[in-house]
Parts: sequence; C-alpha cells; structure tokens
Amino acid sequence: MIVEIVTTGTELLLGQITNTNAPYLACQMNKLGFNVLYQSTVGDNRERMMQVITTALSRADIVITSGGLGPTQGDITKEICAQAFNLKLYLHEPSNNRIKCFFSNRHAPMPESNLRQAMVPEGSVILINERGTAPGIILEKDNKVIINLPGPPHELEYMFEHSVIPYLQKRYGSQGTIVSRVLHTYGIGESALEEKIADLITTQTNPTIALLARPGEVIIRLTAKGSNESIAKQLIDELQLTIIPRISEYIFGFDDNNMETTVGQDLLNKKLSLALAESCTGGLITSRLTDIPGSSNYLCGSIVCYSNEVKIQHIGVDREIIREHGAVSQETAIAMATGIRQKFKTSLGVGVTGIAGPGGATSEKPVGLVYIAIDGPSGHRCYKHQFIGHRTEIKFRASQATLDMIRHYVHGLTLQEDI
Amino acid sequence: MIVEIVTTGTELLLGQITNTNAPYLACQMNKLGFNVLYQSTVGDNRERMMQVITTALSRADIVITSGGLGPTQGDITKEICAQAFNLKLYLHEPSNNRIKCFFSNRHAPMPESNLRQAMVPEGSVILINERGTAPGIILEKDNKVIINLPGPPHELEYMFEHSVIPYLQKRYGSQGTIVSRVLHTYGIGESALEEKIADLITTQTNPTIALLARPGEVIIRLTAKGSNESIAKQLIDELQLTIIPRISEYIFGFDDNNMETTVGQDLLNKKLSLALAESCTGGLITSRLTDIPGSSNYLCGSIVCYSNEVKIQHIGVDREIIREHGAVSQETAIAMATGIRQKFKTSLGVGVTGIAGPGGATSEKPVGLVYIAIDGPSGHRCYKHQFIGHRTEIKFRASQATLDMIRHYVHGLTLQEDI
Repeated sequence: MIVEIVTTGTELLLGQITNTNAPYLACQMNKLGFNVLYQSTVGDNRERMMQVITTALSRADIVITSGGLGPTQGDITKEICAQAFNLKLYLHEPSNNRIKCFFSNRHAPMPESNLRQAMVPEGSVILINERGTAPGIILEKDNKVIINLPGPPHELEYMFEHSVIPYLQKRYGSQGTIVSRVLHTYGIGESALEEKIADLITTQTNPTIALLARPGEVIIRLTAKGSNESIAKQLIDELQLTIIPRISEYIFGFDDNNMETTVGQDLLNKKLSLALAESCTGGLITSRLTDIPGSSNYLCGSIVCYSNEVKIQHIGVDREIIREHGAVSQETAIAMATGIRQKFKTSLGVGVTGIAGPGGATSEKPVGLVYIAIDGPSGHRCYKHQFIGHRTEIKFRASQATLDMIRHYVHGLTLQEDI
Repeated sequence: MIVEIVTTGTELLLGQITNTNAPYLACQMNKLGFNVLYQSTVGDNRERMMQVITTALSRADIVITSGGLGPTQGDITKEICAQAFNLKLYLHEPSNNRIKCFFSNRHAPMPESNLRQAMVPEGSVILINERGTAPGIILEKDNKVIINLPGPPHELEYMFEHSVIPYLQKRYGSQGTIVSRVLHTYGIGESALEEKIADLITTQTNPTIALLARPGEVIIRLTAKGSNESIAKQLIDELQLTIIPRISEYIFGFDDNNMETTVGQDLLNKKLSLALAESCTGGLITSRLTDIPGSSNYLCGSIVCYSNEVKIQHIGVDREIIREHGAVSQETAIAMATGIRQKFKTSLGVGVTGIAGPGGATSEKPVGLVYIAIDGPSGHRCYKHQFIGHRTEIKFRASQATLDMIRHYVHGLTLQEDI
C-alpha cells in the first residue's frame, strides 16, 4: 500500500514552524509496513490544496492529511477532501455535542465558528478527538482512502495511535513490518565507508543499506521488511554479520547509542574514573557525558580553563610550558591531561586545547587546530586535529574526537594520528 | 514568483530525521519576497523523483531541491534534474580540483566515487561548496529554474546565503520583502503572555503577531510585508514600541540573540568576569557561554563538580555544609558560588546544584529540584527551582534559569523567587 502524507498550513509553508507531523506519521506508517513514498505540504488555499490532494490520490492508496480541521475560515482541509470524493457535509450530532460539552466544562462561551468542526462528509468514519475539539475523519471511495487528522501534534498522535492504527489493521490486515537499525561510525568518510561495502549496497534489496553523513559521524542504516518483526530483525542481523568485520574499528554504537553513551558504558565496564580539562571545548564534552543518567559513577568532574591562570593555578600546568609552547600546543594538552588526572585523582585525565575561532588564530595556529591528550594507566597520548567549520561546529567535532579517543584508549587501541 | 521546495532522501520519507531544510528555505525565500506555495519530499528513487520534479516544474517558477548531491549511488537528484531539462552531465574541472584538494589537505586518499560530485549539467551555474565537497547547481531553461543544494544543513545554509541570494537578486530583482523579528521572553507562560497583548494580536494584520513556546522561552514573532526592507522594518518598529512596555521585564533578546549572547554582552558592557561551579548542569552553562565568540573576555573558567570531593577540595565547599544540608541545598549552592568566585578571583561566581534524574531523588528532594546561587559585588543570592522533564530538559532549563539570574544580577535587579 502506497501512502502520501499531506501536511497543510500556511505556517509550514512560511517555514515558521518545523514539520513534526510528517516524520511522526511516516515513522508510524513504516513501522506498520506501509510504504510512505511522498510527502507534500500546501497552504490553506482551496485551489492549490485541491491540486495537491488530487495528485496524491493519483499516486497513493492512502492519503493522510494533518491540519486544517479547526474552526476558522482558513480551515478547509475537510471540505476539499470531501469535494475530491464528491461527498456532501452534514452536521454530525455526536461531535456537535462533544464540542458543546468541551466549552461548557470550561465555563466558556462556544464561539459559533466551532460548529464548523462538527460538519463531516457523508459516509465518513468519525474519529473522536480526546485531546481537542476537531474530530478526525476517514473518507473512503473505491480503493482509495483519505485520513484527515488535526494539526496539533499531541491531538494527532493520540488519534493516530488510538483510532487510525485499529482502522488500518481492520481494513488492510497485516502489511508485514519494516525494521531499521543504525550503525554509528567515526573516523572514516562517507565515500571511503561506501567503498568498503559497495558490493553489498548494490546487491542488497532486503535489507537495504543507506549511508548518511551526520555532524561528527557517518551512519549506516539497514532497513528490512518482513512479515513480522522477528523475521525483519533476523534479516538485519545476518547482513550485519557481513558488514561489521569490514569496518569494526569505526563502529562506535548502534541505534540510539551515541558516542557519550558508548564511552560511559566502556568506563563503567572497566571501572575507570575520568576528569577533563577543557579549554576550547568550553565544557561541551563534560556536558555531553553528563547527559547520560548515572554518569556520576565514572565522571568525577572537570575544569573549564578559559584563561592561562586557571590552567596554571588549578590544573597544575607549568607556566614555562605555556610560555615556551603556547596554550595551544601538544605540551600544554599533555600537561592538562596529566594535571587534571593528578588533581582529581582519577584513572583517566583528558586535556583539550585549541582555537575554536573566529578570533585567536595565527599563521602557525589556524582556527580549528586542536590538541587532545589523554593520560592514564598506559601512559599519555596526544593527537593533533585540524577541524573545519564555525565555532560551535569546531567545538562539537573536537568533543566527538575526544570521546572517540577515550573509547580507543579504554579499549587499549592506538589511533593512527598519534603524534 | 512561485517556489516549490523539494527535499529528497529516504531518511526523510522514513521519518527518521526531521526536515529542517524545508523550513529554512521557506523562511529565507519568503524573506526575499518569493511565494513558497508547495513543499514536497521524495526518496532516492529515479522514477518517483522525476515525477515530483516534473510536477514541481509544472506549477512553480523556481524549484529548490536539497539532498542527493553526495558521492554515493543513492545520490541522484542532480542527474534527475538535468534529465528533466534534457541536459547532459560533464566533468567540471574546478570542482574536480576542489574535491581533490579537500582530500589531499586531509592526507586522505580520494575515493573514486567522489568524482561523481564534480559531474555537472551543461550550461549550469556552479555554486562552490565552502563547507563540503558537493557543489550546488543552478539549472535554467526558458523561464524555469532549478536550484540543487546539498543536504547537510550547514552546507546548504552557507551556500544559500552566499551564492543563491546573490543569484536570485540578480536574476529576479526585488520581489518586495517580508521581514520578521523575534522577541525572546523568559519567565512568563505562553497564554499569560498572549493575554498581555491579546488586543494587538486580533487587530493587527501587517505586521502579524505570532506566539510560540520553545524550550526555555516563549517567542513573539512579528512579521511585516513591505515594498522594501526599510518600510517593512518600520512597520515592525512601530508595533514593537507598543508591545515592549507591556512585557519589558520578560524580554531578554531579539532575533538571533539567545540568552548566552545577551548575558555575554551584559558582562562585557559592565566589565565583569565570571566563573561557575556546575554540578547537575554538568558543564552545559559554561558550554553555552563559550559558544559565543570572544567569551574568554569575561569567562575565566568553571569547575564541573560531579563528586562531593571535587566540591570540597577544588571549590572550597565546607565538608560540614554538605554533611548537614546535603549536596543539593541552598547552603551548598551558595558555598559553591562564593567558593568558585574566590578560587578563580572573578567578579561573579555561580553555583548550581540539583537533581537531574532519573535517579538520585528522595521524598524531600525530587527530580528537577535545583538550587542556583550567585555571588558578586552586591552579595549573594540563591533561587530554588523545580523543573520538569527528562534529564537533558532539566539540564537545559536549569542552564536557562541560571543565565537569566546572571542577567538580572548584572542589571541590579532582584528576582521574585529569591529565597
């Protein structure tokens, strides 16, 4: 079954709000095994909305709309869809009573315009709105179905879960299911990664393999379709067994596991404690690590040293090192890592110093130059990086590289760029 | 001029990522006075993408695509668009050289597949990608234009601003303009804010007024249309003069100025230095402050104290205070603020301690309880907050409240919830 999602509303067209209904509906419909092949957005204009709905009906079996069921003159979705199926509207008494109750419960006068919300196309299925006043509507004609849902996400999501899913299951039966798994990689570019699994990408159709560059990582998404979840999962498991040995050194996590989750788990497993001395990352690495519940079990604390005095007085970096090599140098990074480890008495100490920009660069030390050092039971290491991007991008990339370095150190591995 | 935005990518269709390019492009094109009337999303499938591009060309003058310019086999947007205009692809030498340089600068071998990115349609305008390898492309035929932009938002946005806007202005001249201004507020709810300006919202049509609740703030967006920018701006200035006196205490910034920009500017203006002792916020406040270029002019550094020993040894919190009142208490927060101020010798010291959850709560100290203290030339203050949400939401809300507290302290104001 082919599905098109049509989100309506001028505020979407103007780009004033982010469209969260489309990804929600797409994700849900895919999980149920339907193929969402198109998404469209159109404003509250009769002619253009009719055109979009007509196009959608020409290429999809199921058209799901969001928005435009409200009481105002601009709310026309229901009318247009009824017109597309050549259906008249009538006053739906149960909905009318629900809306009246809604207002009387709030001791508020009901604006006349709210009656519009109780007008529904003849022969349609009415979906009760437990979170608002506008009922949802399902229109059927021949083998085509239009599902009108309200725009506010909490109303739409509740209605989808409680009314639309049962309807779809009753009408279409099981569509099988689609399962996705994400492999997170770091330290390899998108195209180099693709080369390593190019043969699989071209030959695989179920599961499919997709690569995607994200800030600080490249992800591989495996998507399988099966008659039920365990069959789809098994297909993914099998493919994963072929992929992983080729790129194992780059994979740092699966699905919702980001770098900070992985590093936290590694530290916990090996019973290691950690402290950081952050200069150019300004506390971002520590903030990311503390996003993970239970991080106090391995993270003792950090010092953000945005001045040389803090580096010297509180982390114990030798003033001479900074004078001789500069605050942004391999020597300072190592002194920060060993210093914070001693001061905070942790298993591991990390030092990060660099130039986040846009100011502070010299001809020898450009914006994006970052030294990242770690000190621990197997001695210290230091890595030199040259990141590109804006200040916040450089901060993020440096934080990602630091977490990956900790991960490698903990696993007893050496990174290639070791100075 | 009618515009359609076509975002491509299977990950969008699957609902696995939120589409931020469509609202960005819509917003920008509207500002430039173009009418964005349609937005479509389609996956990396040749037949369906061609159908969507053909439909878009039938109803819009300008079609802007995002995504599918990468090096992989799934990247087909450029080819499909060239085909829609019946144009052949050729190897664009300058782009080829740029991509080669990109890899040689990184001492990385260039995968053969990256050459695909340098293939461009004959007669097209090539937009240099300063943030990545895939060039953008503008295809023209008769009175129709297709603009292909890369998918990663930071590449797309940079290219739009630096290459697309000049192109549009040159080709189409002025389209009239839409100007928006955002007023950021903190410390008041959406509906309470609406009540204060309800009369203006109902009567105003140009500019329009829209309220929107965002994490840690409520924004008011004023949008005016005028034949040129200065006329539109004047309309906004006039309305703003009516709005501000009613809600001035809640407004902390305009447009792109977030809380950290405002606080940074205030500290700079008053020549004050700052250090923070962060417990439950885990470095987030310091990281936000250091997102602002030049923050080293007022921020000396911070200590993230995720253990009591760090609070005692490195910030100078009296062990007895923690024993008697607990690490999450007014007394500890104040000791952290005064301690970090003394240790780092700054004008202002801030201490934040609380329970970010999900663990660590007691019946008397629930998840979301946060004490925020400040110490400075006018003595210390401490505020007790009870935030709701997940761990990262509580961290963010606590960081927002802390920055707002610094802002008020610096302005010599007292907050109402002062203990």
